[in-house]
Order: sequence, then structure tokens, then C-alpha cells
Amino acid sequence: MTKPVLVIGGGPAGLAAAHSLATVGRQSIIVEKEEQLGGAPILSGYAKLVPSGEWAKDAIGGMVKRVVDAPEVSVETGATVTSFDGEPGNFTAELSNGKKIDADAAILCSGFTHFDSVNKPEWGFGTYEDVVTTTQVEQMISSGNGVRCPSDDRKPQRVAILLCVGSRDRQIGREWCSKICCTVSSNLAMEIREELPDCHVYIYYMDIRTFGLYETKYYWRSQEEFKVKYIKARIAEVTSDGEKLIVKGEDTLVKRPITIPFDLVVHAIGMDPNVDNPFISETLGIDLEEHGFVGVGNRYGAMGETSRPGVYVAGAATGPETIDDSIAQGHAAAMAVLSSFKDLGKTA
Amino acid sequence: MTKPVLVIGGGPAGLAAAHSLATVGRQSIIVEKEEQLGGAPILSGYAKLVPSGEWAKDAIGGMVKRVVDAPEVSVETGATVTSFDGEPGNFTAELSNGKKIDADAAILCSGFTHFDSVNKPEWGFGTYEDVVTTTQVEQMISSGNGVRCPSDDRKPQRVAILLCVGSRDRQIGREWCSKICCTVSSNLAMEIREELPDCHVYIYYMDIRTFGLYETKYYWRSQEEFKVKYIKARIAEVTSDGEKLIVKGEDTLVKRPITIPFDLVVHAIGMDPNVDNPFISETLGIDLEEHGFVGVGNRYGAMGETSRPGVYVAGAATGPETIDDSIAQGHAAAMAVLSSFKDLGKTA
Repeated sequence: MTKPVLVIGGGPAGLAAAHSLATVGRQSIIVEKEEQLGGAPILSGYAKLVPSGEWAKDAIGGMVKRVVDAPEVSVETGATVTSFDGEPGNFTAELSNGKKIDADAAILCSGFTHFDSVNKPEWGFGTYEDVVTTTQVEQMISSGNGVRCPSDDRKPQRVAILLCVGSRDRQIGREWCSKICCTVSSNLAMEIREELPDCHVYIYYMDIRTFGLYETKYYWRSQEEFKVKYIKARIAEVTSDGEKLIVKGEDTLVKRPITIPFDLVVHAIGMDPNVDNPFISETLGIDLEEHGFVGVGNRYGAMGETSRPGVYVAGAATGPETIDDSIAQGHAAAMAVLSSFKDLGKTA
Repeated sequence: MTKPVLVIGGGPAGLAAAHSLATVGRQSIIVEKEEQLGGAPILSGYAKLVPSGEWAKDAIGGMVKRVVDAPEVSVETGATVTSFDGEPGNFTAELSNGKKIDADAAILCSGFTHFDSVNKPEWGFGTYEDVVTTTQVEQMISSGNGVRCPSDDRKPQRVAILLCVGSRDRQIGREWCSKICCTVSSNLAMEIREELPDCHVYIYYMDIRTFGLYETKYYWRSQEEFKVKYIKARIAEVTSDGEKLIVKGEDTLVKRPITIPFDLVVHAIGMDPNVDNPFISETLGIDLEEHGFVGVGNRYGAMGETSRPGVYVAGAATGPETIDDSIAQGHAAAMAVLSSFKDLGKTA
């Protein structure tokens, strides 16, 4: 007799894991701290996803529907795991809603926390209404309202997207790269240009990290087809002249100061470790890595092993990750759980 | 009664897929065109892998042993698939060795082909003995012979690693980024510095793409702990003054020509589509994408779907990919096959 698998977090990785388990007849229970499944793409209202171009509400919404409709999956929203005891094949979890769950294994898919731009005050967020984040621009687009300046709802004529806000920045204790912001920003720049063909869009970068096939689909296409302008620069500050936002910095290719006025400045915010990771680490008895993400073993053995046997991890819980790779890791972690049953003498 | 799964290619993705299937009691047959399993890390003699730091022969060698020892996996080396007919649950494949295989599904893990540096003649490969590739340096390290100049076996005092050889280069029809060469080169630079502490190592780059957590572990560590020097430059040519190799280019940060002598110049070669892809595409009846890699569907449904139902794809067959992500995709594709049996009315 097998027990269900505890899936902690109902974003792309968790939805993939629960679906995979369901397709082979394995029960799972998704415990999601928010009131709704879908993770960042749904909860933060993302627009069109990289690299598919599909709307988040359709793509990830479809993944949500799939598990909600599956009789093998039960869902506990608005709940967290408050205690977790036992060993592989015989875990017991208590939830914040008072329920108790017996589980064979757990897959931790607790994701990340968006960097809060107020921690980078010299770049104007929190001071100027028209300094926003990539997440806010995603919401402007996905809501159907279009990209507007929050101060007066006008259509911006000049937009600056500043990369690496909360990434590659030792001054604020975030030295990692958030992996996907370059590509997401290229994508957003094209969406802005598509909606507002007269709007000029500039991307300020340190290195453009549109790795792999994203190079052609995002970096080159955004420049050649959509006339997005890329400036390699070190930003000093974002101020205002009372009318426009002023982005001051140094163009690091020509080693000259540049000061350009904009209507809208967008922070391409990075991925922090989930703020709950210290609590999750203690509750589940698993180690975090040096930056505070969930530590994960090498992939040559089982996928997604944490420091605690029987507890697996997938997706951006382990570090900045793309949605696509989070999904792959979710499926692979489900597979790892199925594989582990062999050792437990249980069948799928 | 279920048939085996045909796994085409015995590199990291294929080894992961076959292992996963075996752990749930599913038969698979790996068809590998080379005489040995392991894919590029084994066949090309890689040294220590990114990001684990484990030797390829141990890490991937362990994955090979695992499937060779599994009674559920059979292996056909030195063989290719020459015909493939049927539909999900009922495929028949013919191999170049004359064998016929019935299969429920296929997972294509046929990987990539290393870029051949002779296609970039102005950078000196093929002309000067001491211009080598990252793969050759991997072999120098993994063989235990150490990093030496091929012309006279001396220890180099100055090494240049040139990034993006066969990547991000429209002149030679390769506009994609090969994703992992930046990180692999940082890693190799540290290994060279570790073996030869008096050797200066320079990395010539366009953008440093050590994405995610690789940023701290490779980019910063290589600079701070190992004193590797990074030069943002456009390379014009690699020549020789009769004694040293001369790398000529423009430092794009100071907009000045730079000419530096080196003992050893290393091409960080990119990942081409597998040269066999046109044949694979025709034999399996699957579509390739615009660059010649294997086309793959979005990940919101099943993982790794090709244009032909029942044929899945994982790893660098789909585009430049890391070993870690190839492994994840291999496990996830195995899971996708298991999931598909539900629709076929078969159980795992």
C-alpha cells in the first residue's frame, strides 16, 4: 500500500510533478501557501511566456486545470507545512490548517521571491511613480490595459529597461545572476514596441545573457525586427527633472557618461531565494546553499535530491530558473520518486 | 503486454531516460552509433564537469554502468536506426546491424556535434599547432598529461581562451549561443591555473554568460581566487611571430586595438546540430527547427514532444544544452513516455 507524495508549492514545477505522478496512478497532495495554484506566472500576472509566446493564464492555467481535474491529486491552498517527520516511505506532515498527511516522499517546489526594488533606492523605485518592475509591466500587458505611465496613464514615448536589478550586485548581497531576466526583458521590449510602435525602448545591460537559442529569437529579433536599443552601461541613479525620469550612468563601451530622459523606467527584477526558505529548511530538515536557495545534489544519481533522503526539490527553489526548466525538473523529480519506490520495495 | 522503449543515443540524456524507465520495470533499448556509451563527456574525454566538479569518467561513467548493469536495458552500440514505422504503442525500427525492434515509443537523445574550428580559419586552428579547442584541453587534463603546447610539449606561460568559436557568428551561419561555453571556459581556466600557477590565462569574450548560480561559482571565483583575466574584445585574427601566437583584436571596452602574444590559444567551440540530423529527421519523420536542431513542443503539455506522436526528444538534440539539463530532460522524457501509456491503455 503506497501513500501519497507531498508536493510543496503549486507553481510550474509542482504542477508538473503532481501531473506526472497522477498519470501513472500515484496520489499526490499539493500544499500551496497562496489561495491559488499557478505560482509566479499566475499569481504575479505574467503576460506571454518565454519561449513559447503563450499567455501565462493559458499555458500555466492549463497545467493548473490538469491537476485540479485529476482524481489522483488533492490540493490544500492557503496552507503551509508546519512539521515533517519520518523517513522515506513513511513521512508524516502537519499543515497550518490542522490537517495531517502521511506521505511516501516529498517534492519541494517552493520557488523564489521576486526581488523587492525598494532595496535599490538609488534607481528610483518607490520614489517615482513611473519607475516600475518587469512584473508590473507584465501585469499591464496581461490585464489588457496596455503599457502606461502610472502617474498619469499616458502612453510612454521612451521606456528604459534596467537589467540586473537585484542580481549580480554585491552591494546589496545578491551576487548571483537571475538567469532569465535578459530574455524576459527582450521579450517585454518587443511586446511594448508591438503595442506602442512609436515608443523607443532601451535596454541597459552589463552582459546580455540570452543563452542558447534565445540569442536569435530574442536578442537579435528584438534589435532587427523591433528596433530595441541595447546600451552596455553602469547605472548611477534614476532621478527626475520634474517632467521626465532621468537615467544617469556610464556607457561602458565608450567610457562616457550618458544621461537620457524617459517616460517609464522598468526594473528587471531578479529572483531571490524564497523568503520562507529558513523556515522551510528548518521544518523539512534540509540544507540551504550559500545564497539561501535550497541545496540540491548532483544529477548523475537521482534528480533533485536534497540533504534529506526522500525529500526532492525542483524548479526555482534551487536557484534562478526558467519556467521551462522548472517544468522539466518537476517531471524529473516525480520520476525520481517513482524510481525510489524500487528501493522501498513498493510499486508505482 | 508492453514493448520496450527505443532510446536513440547513449549520452547523458539517453542514459537518464533508460535508467528511469528501468527503475519502474520498463524495458528499453539504447541504440548508440558509436562503439561506446557516454556521449560527448566520455567520447570526447571531458575532464571535470560543470557544475559538480566531478570527473566525467566517474560521473557519466557511473550513469553508463548503471544502465549496463540494469537487466531492463539492452544496448546496441555501433548501430543506427535506419527505418522507423508505426504509431504510438506499435512502432517497428530497423537498425543498421540488421536487427528489428518493436517499441512502444522512442526517445531521441542524439545530442550535438562539436563545432569544427577549421571553419574559422582566421583564428589559426589548423594553421598553428598550438591553437587547440576546449575539447583538446579537456583531454589534456583528463588524460593526466597536463596542459601542454602540442608543438613542443612545453608548459604554456600564457594561454588565451577565445569564446564563441562557432557561436553567435553569422558569418559562418551559426547565430545561436552555445549556452555553456562561457562557464566551461571559466572552469577550464581555473583548472589550468591550478596545474600551472605561473601561467597567465586570458578569456576573450563578447558577453559573459555564466547565468544563474554559475556567476559566483565560475565567473567571480575564476577572477578573484584564480586571477583569470577577462577581456571584452572582438578578435580579428590569430597569427604567429615565429615564436609566439599573436592574438589581434579590438578591446571593445576601451575601443583600442590589442595585440597580445600567447603560447597556447584555445577555441571555446560551440555546439552544432548533430551532423546526422537531416538523416534522423527523415528516418524518424520528425521536424527540425530553423537552425537544424530537433524541433520540440512547448513544455506545458507533455515534455519533449516532437512533431511525431510517440517520439520524444531530450537534451542537446534540441539545441545547445548543459549536461545537467540534458539529464533532467532525459528523466522527464521517460516520465512523459510513462504518462503516455495511460492514453494507450497500458500500465507501466
